[in-house]
Amino acid sequence: MSKPPLMSVAEARSRILALAEPVGEETASLLDAAGRVLAEDVEARRTQPPFAASAMDGYAVRAADARSGATLRVVGEIAAGARADRPLAPGEAMRIFTGAPLPDGADAILLQEDARREGDWVHVAPAKADDAVSPGAWVRPAGGDFHEGERLLRAPRRLSAEDVALAAAAGRSWLTVRRRPRIALLAVGDELTLPGDPRGPADIVSSNNFGVAALLRAEGAEPVIFPLIRDDLDALGAALEAARGFDALATLGGASEGDLDLARPAFGAAQVGLDFYRIAMRPGKPLSAGRFPRGGPVALGLPGNPVSALVCARLFLAPLVDALLGLPADGPPTSPRALAEAVDKNGPREHYMRATREPDGRVRPVDDQDSSLLTRLSRADALIVRPPFDPPRAAGEAVACIMLRGSQV
Amino acid sequence: MSKPPLMSVAEARSRILALAEPVGEETASLLDAAGRVLAEDVEARRTQPPFAASAMDGYAVRAADARSGATLRVVGEIAAGARADRPLAPGEAMRIFTGAPLPDGADAILLQEDARREGDWVHVAPAKADDAVSPGAWVRPAGGDFHEGERLLRAPRRLSAEDVALAAAAGRSWLTVRRRPRIALLAVGDELTLPGDPRGPADIVSSNNFGVAALLRAEGAEPVIFPLIRDDLDALGAALEAARGFDALATLGGASEGDLDLARPAFGAAQVGLDFYRIAMRPGKPLSAGRFPRGGPVALGLPGNPVSALVCARLFLAPLVDALLGLPADGPPTSPRALAEAVDKNGPREHYMRATREPDGRVRPVDDQDSSLLTRLSRADALIVRPPFDPPRAAGEAVACIMLRGSQV
Repeated sequence: MSKPPLMSVAEARSRILALAEPVGEETASLLDAAGRVLAEDVEARRTQPPFAASAMDGYAVRAADARSGATLRVVGEIAAGARADRPLAPGEAMRIFTGAPLPDGADAILLQEDARREGDWVHVAPAKADDAVSPGAWVRPAGGDFHEGERLLRAPRRLSAEDVALAAAAGRSWLTVRRRPRIALLAVGDELTLPGDPRGPADIVSSNNFGVAALLRAEGAEPVIFPLIRDDLDALGAALEAARGFDALATLGGASEGDLDLARPAFGAAQVGLDFYRIAMRPGKPLSAGRFPRGGPVALGLPGNPVSALVCARLFLAPLVDALLGLPADGPPTSPRALAEAVDKNGPREHYMRATREPDGRVRPVDDQDSSLLTRLSRADALIVRPPFDPPRAAGEAVACIMLRGSQV
Repeated sequence: MSKPPLMSVAEARSRILALAEPVGEETASLLDAAGRVLAEDVEARRTQPPFAASAMDGYAVRAADARSGATLRVVGEIAAGARADRPLAPGEAMRIFTGAPLPDGADAILLQEDARREGDWVHVAPAKADDAVSPGAWVRPAGGDFHEGERLLRAPRRLSAEDVALAAAAGRSWLTVRRRPRIALLAVGDELTLPGDPRGPADIVSSNNFGVAALLRAEGAEPVIFPLIRDDLDALGAALEAARGFDALATLGGASEGDLDLARPAFGAAQVGLDFYRIAMRPGKPLSAGRFPRGGPVALGLPGNPVSALVCARLFLAPLVDALLGLPADGPPTSPRALAEAVDKNGPREHYMRATREPDGRVRPVDDQDSSLLTRLSRADALIVRPPFDPPRAAGEAVACIMLRGSQV
């Protein structure tokens, strides 16, 4: 059997993303919508502020009256949530607090610190030039933030805490969001056992399904970990059948060339045209992708090696979740970081080097890049992305990095 | 009443963090532990790999036998999860797959691509120099990742997906984590109404409690939104009483100088020694902090203005959550970004300017920095941090930024 040619990471990703269609929508309460992906634009149901309001504590005045040294009669007090019971006449002022509506007739705020109160009278501080209170001073105009009917948030968009506050201010208690894509995780291998379960001498604890599930949850998907699947056509076939109602499934293991005798017929029996990619990357070369017939789940075959599986999950599965959520999908964002030590030239495959972040922000490759070492991956703060045939790089040179663990600095 | 002097953001934060003690622990399933804060070190319950294993598909050999051009007798096959039924004798090879245990007697792997199989015999590719198969070649030694008893993860630590995979591989199905800090959110104000509820003409929709709750959830806390609290001593007192069993509470509004007549006696009645800070920052100057007696909740008074409340929540409340989780707590991380346009000199207060991120990564302040504008905050990708009296900055100059919306690039 001749091997397919090596494919770039970007090419493989775009083929995988092309298999995805956005999942359906659901109604989420405002609070539960945070972190979810908006599926419908949000328009304002009200105007904010709904009235011209004071931006400070002070006195509502007519700017023309509030010359330096002038004295105004205080005829009322307006708290936030209250309304003046009458308009402001010339020569008058009303005590007002931040956020409270301006009375009719007022057009400016005399700041508390520029005023001296004496009983029913307030004196405008003489130190202030007469332009101290100009028309509109310290007034938030009605609709200064937004107007009723204005489109405030456009779908698709992952909703931030600030977006949730804005939607609340706009009078929205419910939002339409994409439901969480359901993704089945199928760890395949005779050697696998679950953490804590009794083990045989040649058993390996299944770990990549748990790590990938954690990654998927953080991405906004709903992972379901299937029972461990033995290297057996019937067992894999039954699991594929059970995953038919999901939005996507990922096998973990069972995808290396030694395993194709199992994967090919099992996916074939499920009528999934699976493409096998040999990706020009380290770690984790073998990958397969396809889609079940009649709008069934996207199927992704990830390597069984835990480090490869987790790196591939970041490079291919997380973007697939974005695509299923209707978001523009691409690889994980990279940012330039300075190297803490020199690195050798890279070979023909894109290399995702595990690296730690120094206190000064520079990145240092971990001591051993062997793709079986979960300790080194767990310790890593970043993946340094080395393009194929990247020349040697000196300490201090900038390299593209995928930051892990939410490290933004 | 004389005003307290202005206090720096860092000073106020360190005073608030000094009030916090870590919350208790709970048992989390491995999968639910992702994103949580580890409270107990994780030691390996097994050795990984538990045996010397092949790193590739190929043949297990004695390196000394596998000279270029040599021919070895194939005496067996070892899949992952299997074990050889006998040791390897001189002149012999066994077919082996990635991850499978080396048979006794073997010390290297002859790669599949360097081998030519003929029935029960395998020929070592003549093209290979004799050091092609050196002792240990393509062998993962037992314990190469970790040994039983080795400390793999140190508390406190926020668990990443990779950490979860590592803990699984180490045989752990349960982890001890800090429970989620429970934080009561008390929005105070006669003018407030809930989104979707009927409104009066001077009503304002309460939005900062929803935004802050979303932020707290993302930080790993469990926010509880209290019913809206009127500007009434009894109502605020009852809410403070109801929050007594929480780990922290934050009032939203009711903290500006005009409101102190309410907050001081209410907190005083609850025996909370509340300190009032005037913080040298924009937006959001007034803040108060204290702690209930006898190990009760930390109390934080945030501004009622939604933009100020959300910015203050990032600067003070999110670090408080970290401290409650037992993590080393500090302000949000900043990273340097180039300005897309010049900015004027800054005044005496630290300024957190809302800014968008250009496609090229530079940051541009939004058009209007008025602290009442939620639209501008929702649109922002970053807060530019201007120190007090920062001089004017030209386009292209680097400024410290707090990235919002998870934008890492």
